Amino acid sequence: MPRPSGRRPDELRRIEITRHYTKYAEGSALFCIGDTRVLCTASVEEKVPPWLRGKHRGWVTAEYNMLARATNLRVAGRGAPNGRAVEIQRLIGRSLRAAVDLKKLGERSIIVDCDVLQADGGTRAAAICGGYVAVADAINWLRAHALLDENPLRRMVAAISVGVGRGEVVTDLDYAEDSRAELDMNVVLDDRGGLLEIQGGVEKFNTEMDRATLNKMLDQAQAAGAEILRAMQDALATD
Amino acid sequence: MPRPSGRRPDELRRIEITRHYTKYAEGSALFCIGDTRVLCTASVEEKVPPWLRGKHRGWVTAEYNMLARATNLRVAGRGAPNGRAVEIQRLIGRSLRAAVDLKKLGERSIIVDCDVLQADGGTRAAAICGGYVAVADAINWLRAHALLDENPLRRMVAAISVGVGRGEVVTDLDYAEDSRAELDMNVVLDDRGGLLEIQGGVEKFNTEMDRATLNKMLDQAQAAGAEILRAMQDALATD
Amino acid sequence: MPRPSGRRPDELRRIEITRHYTKYAEGSALFCIGDTRVLCTASVEEKVPPWLRGKHRGWVTAEYNMLARATNLRVAGRGAPNGRAVEIQRLIGRSLRAAVDLKKLGERSIIVDCDVLQADGGTRAAAICGGYVAVADAINWLRAHALLDENPLRRMVAAISVGVGRGEVVTDLDYAEDSRAELDMNVVLDDRGGLLEIQGGVEKFNTEMDRATLNKMLDQAQAAGAEILRAMQDALATD
Amino acid sequence: MPRPSGRRPDELRRIEITRHYTKYAEGSALFCIGDTRVLCTASVEEKVPPWLRGKHRGWVTAEYNMLARATNLRVAGRGAPNGRAVEIQRLIGRSLRAAVDLKKLGERSIIVDCDVLQADGGTRAAAICGGYVAVADAINWLRAHALLDENPLRRMVAAISVGVGRGEVVTDLDYAEDSRAELDMNVVLDDRGGLLEIQGGVEKFNTEMDRATLNKMLDQAQAAGAEILRAMQDALATD
Amino acid sequence: MPRPSGRRPDELRRIEITRHYTKYAEGSALFCIGDTRVLCTASVEEKVPPWLRGKHRGWVTAEYNMLARATNLRVAGRGAPNGRAVEIQRLIGRSLRAAVDLKKLGERSIIVDCDVLQADGGTRAAAICGGYVAVADAINWLRAHALLDENPLRRMVAAISVGVGRGEVVTDLDYAEDSRAELDMNVVLDDRGGLLEIQGGVEKFNTEMDRATLNKMLDQAQAAGAEILRAMQDALATD
Amino acid sequence: MPRPSGRRPDELRRIEITRHYTKYAEGSALFCIGDTRVLCTASVEEKVPPWLRGKHRGWVTAEYNMLARATNLRVAGRGAPNGRAVEIQRLIGRSLRAAVDLKKLGERSIIVDCDVLQADGGTRAAAICGGYVAVADAINWLRAHALLDENPLRRMVAAISVGVGRGEVVTDLDYAEDSRAELDMNVVLDDRGGLLEIQGGVEKFNTEMDRATLNKMLDQAQAAGAEILRAMQDALATD
Repeated sequence: MPRPSGRRPDELRRIEITRHYTKYAEGSALFCIGDTRVLCTASVEEKVPPWLRGKHRGWVTAEYNMLARATNLRVAGRGAPNGRAVEIQRLIGRSLRAAVDLKKLGERSIIVDCDVLQADGGTRAAAICGGYVAVADAINWLRAHALLDENPLRRMVAAISVGVGRGEVVTDLDYAEDSRAELDMNVVLDDRGGLLEIQGGVEKFNTEMDRATLNKMLDQAQAAGAEILRAMQDALATD
Repeated sequence: MPRPSGRRPDELRRIEITRHYTKYAEGSALFCIGDTRVLCTASVEEKVPPWLRGKHRGWVTAEYNMLARATNLRVAGRGAPNGRAVEIQRLIGRSLRAAVDLKKLGERSIIVDCDVLQADGGTRAAAICGGYVAVADAINWLRAHALLDENPLRRMVAAISVGVGRGEVVTDLDYAEDSRAELDMNVVLDDRGGLLEIQGGVEKFNTEMDRATLNKMLDQAQAAGAEILRAMQDALATD
Repeated sequence: MPRPSGRRPDELRRIEITRHYTKYAEGSALFCIGDTRVLCTASVEEKVPPWLRGKHRGWVTAEYNMLARATNLRVAGRGAPNGRAVEIQRLIGRSLRAAVDLKKLGERSIIVDCDVLQADGGTRAAAICGGYVAVADAINWLRAHALLDENPLRRMVAAISVGVGRGEVVTDLDYAEDSRAELDMNVVLDDRGGLLEIQGGVEKFNTEMDRATLNKMLDQAQAAGAEILRAMQDALATD
Repeated sequence: MPRPSGRRPDELRRIEITRHYTKYAEGSALFCIGDTRVLCTASVEEKVPPWLRGKHRGWVTAEYNMLARATNLRVAGRGAPNGRAVEIQRLIGRSLRAAVDLKKLGERSIIVDCDVLQADGGTRAAAICGGYVAVADAINWLRAHALLDENPLRRMVAAISVGVGRGEVVTDLDYAEDSRAELDMNVVLDDRGGLLEIQGGVEKFNTEMDRATLNKMLDQAQAAGAEILRAMQDALATD
Repeated sequence: MPRPSGRRPDELRRIEITRHYTKYAEGSALFCIGDTRVLCTASVEEKVPPWLRGKHRGWVTAEYNMLARATNLRVAGRGAPNGRAVEIQRLIGRSLRAAVDLKKLGERSIIVDCDVLQADGGTRAAAICGGYVAVADAINWLRAHALLDENPLRRMVAAISVGVGRGEVVTDLDYAEDSRAELDMNVVLDDRGGLLEIQGGVEKFNTEMDRATLNKMLDQAQAAGAEILRAMQDALATD
Repeated sequence: MPRPSGRRPDELRRIEITRHYTKYAEGSALFCIGDTRVLCTASVEEKVPPWLRGKHRGWVTAEYNMLARATNLRVAGRGAPNGRAVEIQRLIGRSLRAAVDLKKLGERSIIVDCDVLQADGGTRAAAICGGYVAVADAINWLRAHALLDENPLRRMVAAISVGVGRGEVVTDLDYAEDSRAELDMNVVLDDRGGLLEIQGGVEKFNTEMDRATLNKMLDQAQAAGAEILRAMQDALATD
């Protein structure tokens, strides 16, 4: 039985990365995967949160926001982020910090704003990938301005969603699949084959995840991650 | 003495209008004028605010929001809109309501979200222009779905900023001009030569606006308005 | 056809100005025009907003608030100011700053609180007029306490509403007129015949403003402004 | 040793009551005692809080608010009421409910807004007294509009502050006394000699209140209460 | 006619005090009276509120919070404290400050968090009693760490509720009595027989409090206070 | 090199479960593991969130809250839950919903409040375990009151934290271990050997998780989960 999109179980949607999308941010990228479009801007600020002051370390954090009409249903676009957004932006922040040696960054912050212009599944994974490109360009900017002694970037970071739909392990779920999936998991990984964070599972009372299925999901996530990382590398290689 | 951009005093920046920018909204347009880019989505909701219920009239309203890094300085992107945003979104709402016969719209709302992706002066005028295109397409959508008896759209609406910089009346100020202008005014107008709203003046203690300068500003605004309306008409003519 | 109040088209309501209304504020005035009563207090604070620190300039700002039962309908009196209040207090602030040389004021703020005790149309114009008197007295207080080298007050500022009701240009609309007006505009002006800010227009889909009507509205606004400024001058002359 | 104001220990300040202060509220009174001025408006609403719906009973509640410059120090006038205001408005509400048979009021609310225009001690007692007058006039309004079967007003309610300053029991403390008092108490009472609420005591670690002092405070409070109730009766008798 | 609990009119419920309930707080006590259980923790912070800085004085303050299901009806447990909680925490703070010489405390704060685990009447009185024990232990901690020159504790403080139910003065009302009481009063007192604060009265339109009843309520409150203070002394004596 | 607590790598802390901790909640449990103490109350409400109305399904949700002094540092206990709390309460809600057939629950909600009285690592896992016991007792209450046709409880759910500290995979990290761990993961599982949710990974730039380590963590989590489920079963078996 085919996927709604007709893709193979392990097939990614088309990825398009536009660096330097805005002229003001130190780093920025529009990351598109299928119809999902996330605008990520990385802002450098020469200060750190209060609890880090004087500790000779930097900070990387993220905010995640859906534009009011990014989905089929309009939601009031402003006000405090809702629970889902909070959960997501904490994941993005942790993932991007895993890429950066905060001591080498110096006592400054990189704040990554991830604005979802259009949402068709996989926005949190797209935000991590686009956020990484924006952070890499912000660090390029810092180095071009001679503000860093050493390169604080230690590895590339990407993310992908995997899940189980109609009994089959599938990669990169779009909204039509995601809303009906039996299992759903986001996997954050690096360019050295390591896993950084796993988040996901079941929400229904009559499904569960056995170790074999988990292993298959991780296999597909690692294969897809390698492919996404190549696309990001290609984008970052050009100037 | 030339303008920072080298434009003639009455010269507009390049306008680019992308209709149907998102696949979910009933109407949407990315309106670009120079480096200013505003994404406008018009959402149809089958209800009206509480104070209009049962009155057989519709409502058109707007929200205006800058993405966190739309300008040179990052601002926290969420929370209640600040004073400037409130002032602007009220102007957008009034301007768009001037285009629509709310009785013919029926007891439903069109909510226009104006998200500034990049700000280089003139964002509120751009939001009115892009907002009009999005509203027109939302009404096209309503008509295509046979939800309207009569066309509620009564006229086209556009807006432009004019000001005085270094003693000269100039049209369509970019950020470099706007931040140093002696006078600054937004003019909302329709496609029949009428004025809909004027908003602006001086903020400095040692400038004032005489009637002759005001008249010259309005002349240039009306000329520029006609040019913008042509671009909007062209965009709306194609399908 | 006469106005609801029986006034001539260009006739102002009765103005009454009570200076020193409270014993605590550095400047204060109860400004009454017809049944509209606005209590304006000007408070001097020896600090400026964060973004002005160290720039050797002062600041003048305003807050506008309606008491819960200032109108026919009770509204919850507290909480964040609503959109209308924000728009109004920004206009008041800009208008009063146009009267003051902020460099000569020194690194301090004058905060003008405008509390509407009773609202019968024209509250924002009344708040600007009463706010000016309160600011002038706050500056008198600063000078009496030898806290200023030079007088920072550069001109008098007043405001008036004009509009079009039943086809006729009218001055100083009361609530009964304002709620049915075809056009409505607030004009801020100084005692040298200059215009400082114009704000207004149409909200209905089937009215527009031609240049001839605009000119007539401005003529009446300037005549009324001169009359109000005389009343303010008289009030400030006595001690 | 005399009181700062030169008053005798049991002497009230001058009381002035202006009924019908605003033209919109169903009941309103400006209650002045010395330099303390509180504007009380009573608004009738034909609904009750959710937890009272369908119970054939009405509700009386109060909001207490200081204008931003009601005292020597400006405080931001808006936003959620602070702790002191909450404590006070709960006291006002309880006191006024003690005057009204809520069953006879019917399923409607009277909301009393108490805005302190100028504060010189005793504002919560003044708000209770002015609030009572406003409620009485709102009930007059309801009866004049034939909206009540029976008079729900069961008794008059007033309040007064008493305290101990420099060893002496004093009545009606002004700010100068209040800020240095050893003991401070508000007493709410009715026109039949009964006590309705007592609230107060010591805040310093080295004072306490013995039963004899408490009794003397209550004696003076009851005498002053009778005097205030006469002034309220006189104000309500005229029309 | 017996009390719902079968107690004598002046009979307290069983009191149980568990000191050192948490391992982190400088002082903590679980104070149980009948089925009412309040967890009080006293936290020492080496700073004072802004308005006390540089004045060589300390501060004691309290927060009062009911867990979401402390009563029969679940209430959303978070968000700004409601009006009742604000009123209560202000009473707790004033009462505990009456026990401490703030000059001898030095420029530091003791913050007492009172979390009601289960509410069966009398929670504010229980919070004052438990709060006192926690403050006493926090001061013990400060003295054990040699952070104080002199003992700032000047007296013991306790509180009790008294009221009138079915015509009879009763001590220590449980929820069943409290919800039907005609009069209800909280009395804060010290271990030297003095009264510190009285708060209470009637909320119904057809009850009032005469001086004789008030005196009987105070007699019972003072007797019960002495008993509670003995229990607190016993708890504090052991180590 | 031993663990700070001296435990073996796969050794749990002592578990203590007190059912019926409060007399009001339909289900409640104090769940203690080592020095971590979480009070969980399950409240039954005969309504569902707006988006579920009329769908013949119930809802289970959770709120997670730390008392102000649950840890070594006092945090202001109220206001909107912070990001960490939001992330945790979403995990608790998903985990408990995985235990319940929401159709059989009927159109009602079970709201689980998890209040951390003392935090020494592993609070989110403890909240899931204690929350399950509270939900089970709330369902017992519903069945005892004949409000359910069928038992909606489909499986037992528990959770445990596992991590890597100083190179070794360890079970049930306390605060001393958790704050220094290289990897940290929470595993939610059921009593049939299935995994429900995995959440965790690295936050440091120089660690990563290989598949072998992940497998060892999951092995230990499943062994510990079985042990915790036995303790929960024992607690639920007694009455």
